[in-house]
Amino acid sequence: MAESTAPRDAQDLVAATASAARTAQRSIAGAPRAVKDAALVAMADALVAHTDEILTANASDLQRGRDSGMKPGLLDRLALDASRLEGIAEALREIAALPDPVGQILDGSVMPNGLRVRRVRVPIGVVGMIYEARPNVTVDVAALAIKAGNAVILRGGSAAQDSNAAIIAALRSALKAQGLPPELVASIDAAGREGATALMRARGAIDLLVPRGGAGLIRSVVENSIVPVIETGSGNCHVYVDASAQQDEAVEIIINAKTQRVGVCNAAETLIVHREIAKAWLPRAAEALWQKGTTLHADEQALQILAPAAGAGGHEALLEAATPEDWETEYGSLDLAVRVVDDVQAAIEHIRAHTTGHTEAVLAQDASVINDFIAGMDSAAVIVNASTRFTDGGQLGLGAELGISTQKLHARGPMGLAELTTTMWIVEGDGHIRT
Amino acid sequence: MAESTAPRDAQDLVAATASAARTAQRSIAGAPRAVKDAALVAMADALVAHTDEILTANASDLQRGRDSGMKPGLLDRLALDASRLEGIAEALREIAALPDPVGQILDGSVMPNGLRVRRVRVPIGVVGMIYEARPNVTVDVAALAIKAGNAVILRGGSAAQDSNAAIIAALRSALKAQGLPPELVASIDAAGREGATALMRARGAIDLLVPRGGAGLIRSVVENSIVPVIETGSGNCHVYVDASAQQDEAVEIIINAKTQRVGVCNAAETLIVHREIAKAWLPRAAEALWQKGTTLHADEQALQILAPAAGAGGHEALLEAATPEDWETEYGSLDLAVRVVDDVQAAIEHIRAHTTGHTEAVLAQDASVINDFIAGMDSAAVIVNASTRFTDGGQLGLGAELGISTQKLHARGPMGLAELTTTMWIVEGDGHIRT
Repeated sequence: MAESTAPRDAQDLVAATASAARTAQRSIAGAPRAVKDAALVAMADALVAHTDEILTANASDLQRGRDSGMKPGLLDRLALDASRLEGIAEALREIAALPDPVGQILDGSVMPNGLRVRRVRVPIGVVGMIYEARPNVTVDVAALAIKAGNAVILRGGSAAQDSNAAIIAALRSALKAQGLPPELVASIDAAGREGATALMRARGAIDLLVPRGGAGLIRSVVENSIVPVIETGSGNCHVYVDASAQQDEAVEIIINAKTQRVGVCNAAETLIVHREIAKAWLPRAAEALWQKGTTLHADEQALQILAPAAGAGGHEALLEAATPEDWETEYGSLDLAVRVVDDVQAAIEHIRAHTTGHTEAVLAQDASVINDFIAGMDSAAVIVNASTRFTDGGQLGLGAELGISTQKLHARGPMGLAELTTTMWIVEGDGHIRT
Repeated sequence: MAESTAPRDAQDLVAATASAARTAQRSIAGAPRAVKDAALVAMADALVAHTDEILTANASDLQRGRDSGMKPGLLDRLALDASRLEGIAEALREIAALPDPVGQILDGSVMPNGLRVRRVRVPIGVVGMIYEARPNVTVDVAALAIKAGNAVILRGGSAAQDSNAAIIAALRSALKAQGLPPELVASIDAAGREGATALMRARGAIDLLVPRGGAGLIRSVVENSIVPVIETGSGNCHVYVDASAQQDEAVEIIINAKTQRVGVCNAAETLIVHREIAKAWLPRAAEALWQKGTTLHADEQALQILAPAAGAGGHEALLEAATPEDWETEYGSLDLAVRVVDDVQAAIEHIRAHTTGHTEAVLAQDASVINDFIAGMDSAAVIVNASTRFTDGGQLGLGAELGISTQKLHARGPMGLAELTTTMWIVEGDGHIRT
């Protein structure tokens, strides 16, 4: 809207960058796979070759972060070393090895009047990305975008600005050396915060905008962008343990879903247990979760069942009464909400009322319970008898992912290369007219 | 954004309507095809059975339209009679006959670790539609939405409010008689203009918003909605006639593309001609276009070629010098911009600079010209040796269409039933955890 326009110079920078990106994109839109793959491999090599410059820049970001009191967890996500950089370069080579989505024919037929019709994958065009302080995202996004025939305009977090600048310089030098326009990968960090606003208003110049970062960043982009947006990453994931669940398996799965990596969006946040097995199973699961240091936020029934076990094991500090906010919370930490329900239908109602639509798991051996659960869900992924942690581009066979979409349009769940394309209808006739 | 919130009562109406629609939608989300098809046939029958009430309501809309000076073309689009209503009902029966998109498995495989993975089409959920004065849209949208397992919330134009209310009442009575919740088809016309604003702000409650109508309506929805939007209908379509074109065919095609129906978005608006055939072909094409009453807005070269022919045939009034605005204009009338270019590359550059990304046609027998043209386009449809009028859901085998998307996300080109669905990943394991 008019009231949230960016200052003139930020708008100018974004307009000029987007225009150069559009021109550059045309040079790879229909490029053979070999050209794009060679560029990606050259980009990977350039990252390694520029290790010194990138680590020096990263050290300056880290110093600024420490000076401004950045938390250790965030500092760790920002930090690079030669081995992490090699890992980032390796991920880039893996993207080069993926099949090319461009040119794939999705469907087609000969119409009754003889028209030959096909729908073909083509690049989206110019992709914008607004993200926070993780330098590896800069590389992943650039690689996925180019592999799918797109140009990318990056707006990284100010905390990583020196690292991102050094990385982008290395990537652009590789593109140039390959005879490709360096404008395929551009940054608008120079425009500061206003650059992000200008990016969100550049409808037509930018074809797709993907925010990746905290909930505040994502909400701001969703609410302010008139460029089409794909929302990513918010995951209040549930695990329902039915009366028919295989109980040992269920303990392993909830431990994996909650504790294998706590900061990720596909970690479990709420455990829902059928009352018939709650007394037998919940204390076992709780003991294993407590061993990992997990605090349980239990509803009344769960609290009654768990209190004696917590007392006996000395885990009183890891058991709390749940509040209504617990059902809505994506903890991102060793915390788990726990609820006991009467049946699968009650579990479905709880999940539908509180989920962010990312991933829900059902642990059951009763086929009708599994079917009811799947039919009752409205989320990007439903997992049966496995950990929620499998909602991941790599695990589901996409090779790599740009993020995990929790919206229903265009992309739902892990976004791979195909989600960075659109389609074009190609219709061939022999002088056909409509009558 | 906070500054464009709707008044409290409009927000309340939209929230209550959306909540009821969500509940209703769950009852058909997984319904077998037979249930949905029976509902659609009952809706068609109800429209015919309620002919009297609907025509009475329509007469009142028409009277109000005439009193307020509505133009004849718009009055005609608004007008219903028994035969038009039967046609609308028939279209509804045709939608019932289409295959069910829900439950279709798009892809799937067994991962190396044994996880069984599939991606399945599921309904989007609650679809909002903001549209202008064409009562048949009310029926088409309701039918497509229900066939794809969705509920729909309609905000029609005030000019058709009585017709829409009568139509919606008939549709709801049919749903009820079939044992389905009437809330599957809801109107928020009672909330007036503020209802549209509230709909655009109802992110989470509404899964998808489709505006259908004039450019002003569509722009307003695109700029103000925080609900995901699919933009439809803007078509500045081009026809390029190459030096290698089959010339008789090319005359037939441009006549069809421009004059068969002038108000539609897939009509041609600019004709681009290779200079090598301009002298021979353009006067022939112009003569045929003039016979149909088409005004040609010609660039300098075309004007030089056409002026003698216009003079000889007494068509001076149908030949004008083109202004820069002509290249940008979707006339929607018997007007056509005409330009002569040096080669296919110049045609590509012209089209990329001026198109709305709907449909472009190339008329050529030279395969390398055709390939260059296809590779150079960035539009929803490219047509080879046929009329632009084929960009249409029915013509391309989709059966029916909700509109024609000119954006790149989720839907591009004609939107059929599949575009009213999203996908869900279903992942089945046997106690799988991530390591």
